[in-house]
Amino acid sequence: MKHFLSVEQLTEQDMFELFQLAKRCREEITPFKKQLFAANLFFEPSTRTKMSFTVAERKLGLEILDFNPETSSVKKGETLYDTVRTLEAIGADLAIIRHHDDDWMETLTDHISIPIINAGAGKKEHPTQSMLDLFTIYEEFQTFKDLNMTIIGDIKHSRVAHSNAKALEKLGANVHLCAAPNFKDHSLNYPYIDIDQAIKQSDVIMLLRIQHERHQHLSETSDYLKTFGLTRDRENMMKDGAIILHPAPVNRGVEIADSIVECERSRIFKQMENGVYMRMAIIKKLLQKWGIE
Amino acid sequence: MKHFLSVEQLTEQDMFELFQLAKRCREEITPFKKQLFAANLFFEPSTRTKMSFTVAERKLGLEILDFNPETSSVKKGETLYDTVRTLEAIGADLAIIRHHDDDWMETLTDHISIPIINAGAGKKEHPTQSMLDLFTIYEEFQTFKDLNMTIIGDIKHSRVAHSNAKALEKLGANVHLCAAPNFKDHSLNYPYIDIDQAIKQSDVIMLLRIQHERHQHLSETSDYLKTFGLTRDRENMMKDGAIILHPAPVNRGVEIADSIVECERSRIFKQMENGVYMRMAIIKKLLQKWGIE
Amino acid sequence: MKHFLSVEQLTEQDMFELFQLAKRCREEITPFKKQLFAANLFFEPSTRTKMSFTVAERKLGLEILDFNPETSSVKKGETLYDTVRTLEAIGADLAIIRHHDDDWMETLTDHISIPIINAGAGKKEHPTQSMLDLFTIYEEFQTFKDLNMTIIGDIKHSRVAHSNAKALEKLGANVHLCAAPNFKDHSLNYPYIDIDQAIKQSDVIMLLRIQHERHQHLSETSDYLKTFGLTRDRENMMKDGAIILHPAPVNRGVEIADSIVECERSRIFKQMENGVYMRMAIIKKLLQKWGIE
Repeated sequence: MKHFLSVEQLTEQDMFELFQLAKRCREEITPFKKQLFAANLFFEPSTRTKMSFTVAERKLGLEILDFNPETSSVKKGETLYDTVRTLEAIGADLAIIRHHDDDWMETLTDHISIPIINAGAGKKEHPTQSMLDLFTIYEEFQTFKDLNMTIIGDIKHSRVAHSNAKALEKLGANVHLCAAPNFKDHSLNYPYIDIDQAIKQSDVIMLLRIQHERHQHLSETSDYLKTFGLTRDRENMMKDGAIILHPAPVNRGVEIADSIVECERSRIFKQMENGVYMRMAIIKKLLQKWGIE
Repeated sequence: MKHFLSVEQLTEQDMFELFQLAKRCREEITPFKKQLFAANLFFEPSTRTKMSFTVAERKLGLEILDFNPETSSVKKGETLYDTVRTLEAIGADLAIIRHHDDDWMETLTDHISIPIINAGAGKKEHPTQSMLDLFTIYEEFQTFKDLNMTIIGDIKHSRVAHSNAKALEKLGANVHLCAAPNFKDHSLNYPYIDIDQAIKQSDVIMLLRIQHERHQHLSETSDYLKTFGLTRDRENMMKDGAIILHPAPVNRGVEIADSIVECERSRIFKQMENGVYMRMAIIKKLLQKWGIE
Repeated sequence: MKHFLSVEQLTEQDMFELFQLAKRCREEITPFKKQLFAANLFFEPSTRTKMSFTVAERKLGLEILDFNPETSSVKKGETLYDTVRTLEAIGADLAIIRHHDDDWMETLTDHISIPIINAGAGKKEHPTQSMLDLFTIYEEFQTFKDLNMTIIGDIKHSRVAHSNAKALEKLGANVHLCAAPNFKDHSLNYPYIDIDQAIKQSDVIMLLRIQHERHQHLSETSDYLKTFGLTRDRENMMKDGAIILHPAPVNRGVEIADSIVECERSRIFKQMENGVYMRMAIIKKLLQKWGIE
């Protein structure tokens, strides 16, 4: 693990080690002894991921180089490679990158000599989100074996759907998908089921966000809730002990009824809390591989 | 004091305690022992208030989560409530919020489990500014009893005029107002006097900013200075020991002559300096109420 | 040295002292004992300079007030003077300023009571960049005497060309210039030579950036490389031990061939690394003059 770029690069053992490390990070924090600099490069809007990394970094005692593309030389046409190479030269010990290209990692990984963490790649990958989702499920059930999962929503444009489905399968869960016709992605090899079937059988409902900012012309979102979303009626029919995940930001009243966002089954804010510890674990483990403790 | 939202919630005793605490913060700083995170959420432009809170927070040893709405999920339509709830979940121990709505606090205070400080609410409230104004007067006169105050300028659109007038009255000062006809607010129950009367009788002149960014079509601002503003001639006629306050940013040559901004009577930059200590005091006192020391 | 505004204010001895101090900063860091605040005011886009100062400041233990003009009272029309004066009042111990005016320093230096470092002034001065360029040459050759330098590129619009040429001459180097006809600046009193002559004779090639953002209508940039830029063929003909500098961001394929940016002669990323130590040295030396250690 030279860089942390994709959930696919992780073995089952890697994942369980990260769960244990995240747990330890929640209980007790041991900051790095040396002064280290983490460069945060977010080329797309983000609250949760960026702030979550910020808290994780500061809890580990890392200094932060907060790179803002709007006030940077990217405005002068600088490439991502030159930007990251510059931050490396200036003293960054680690780079956390979110970028709108699906494959930004490819231009970097060969020539950059500091560890890189993928904090979001176009609509393709968001591995730290996947790991915090998995951690939240693990904390709940202590296993993935034979758990029924359904990923519901805009499968097509989601960067977590793909990696989560594959990782969950690897860990032994039964993965199903559920989506409105225009949100289906048939390149994914998991069975599609309808929403009411999903509600009935699932131990974990992973809702996805309807991404208004990626496709603007979603009409009649209130119909969407009734037909494809998680209403209060559907929540009432979920199995005992079943939980609801959502990567947030939530569109209240679109993919999920407003009143359920913070209901007892919801782990939505728990996911955010877990995200900090998972990111601490990922940073720790990655820097350890580079000989930094 | 679960949250610090309005000067109206403060008793006379609360205010004097804050003055004493602000004084102590100037003399000696005792940072919090635990690593704590303050989330700064500024949805409106700010130099003074934001930077002042930043210095106050760092002097107290707080970590800062600098939330920038322009690069956040607010761009994806996230509500203020969900944004603050997210920051709470991620680990914020305190939220400092400025927002353009007059009543943003109402959507938050019931469901958020961390202390909130109001750093500006629409054109309604700006209680930390009020408290630093009062602190500056207190430092000068050691009392408010029978002091003659006049608040001069755009009373109608000012978020400090209303709260300052009420707080000053509570503390025993005689409050007068002075405004151009279109800047008067007749819902405030204090006598309006003309500028020359104000100059003659006041121990404290509190100038307000002509807020170009709130009402763009102010013509002939140089006439404004002559008719309604603080010229050098008027400054010369002020009482011995009388002082000038202004919340800044100053429009030099509009509400105040350029040459008076840093004159001997002016406490304008002193207010900014005091603002840091007052904000330290407010943070300390509020966190203390939540059991954090 | 009340403020650090221009290379011209530095004697030869000042420069060598800064080289030595920068070297020591690389080897061992001694942070300031007191909590000090550095205000970074960047009114123009910057990656390198701003991030370089950030690392330098944090290595010295300085707290950072990151002033962003886009979310500040500059939006309300506040002048640079009032902004800096405000930051001083709020507690800044040092101001680092980049601004698009050539002469912004003039409005500040008389009335501001904290040290100011010029991090870029219009197209006129960029003294910390000059000093890191000189430091990089010094590290390479341990002397400037009789070294052949050629500054190549957009001399006319460059803020480093002017100050570098003068400083290099002061230090004993032979300075030549090389530019496309429209990029020449005949107010500079150094001989112009052609690119192939420059390649043949120079110990140090200082390339300048073609500043797209300052003059948009540069057509046929690939012709530019062939006619005026540093191609691989030209690089092959450089003297043994000769080096290439560039202030970056680089326009790969315009003023320099893509494949040379990180070649063995290139000190482009070394310059960035050196920039951190040079800026630490400048901050240290300046604060020392103000009695702060």
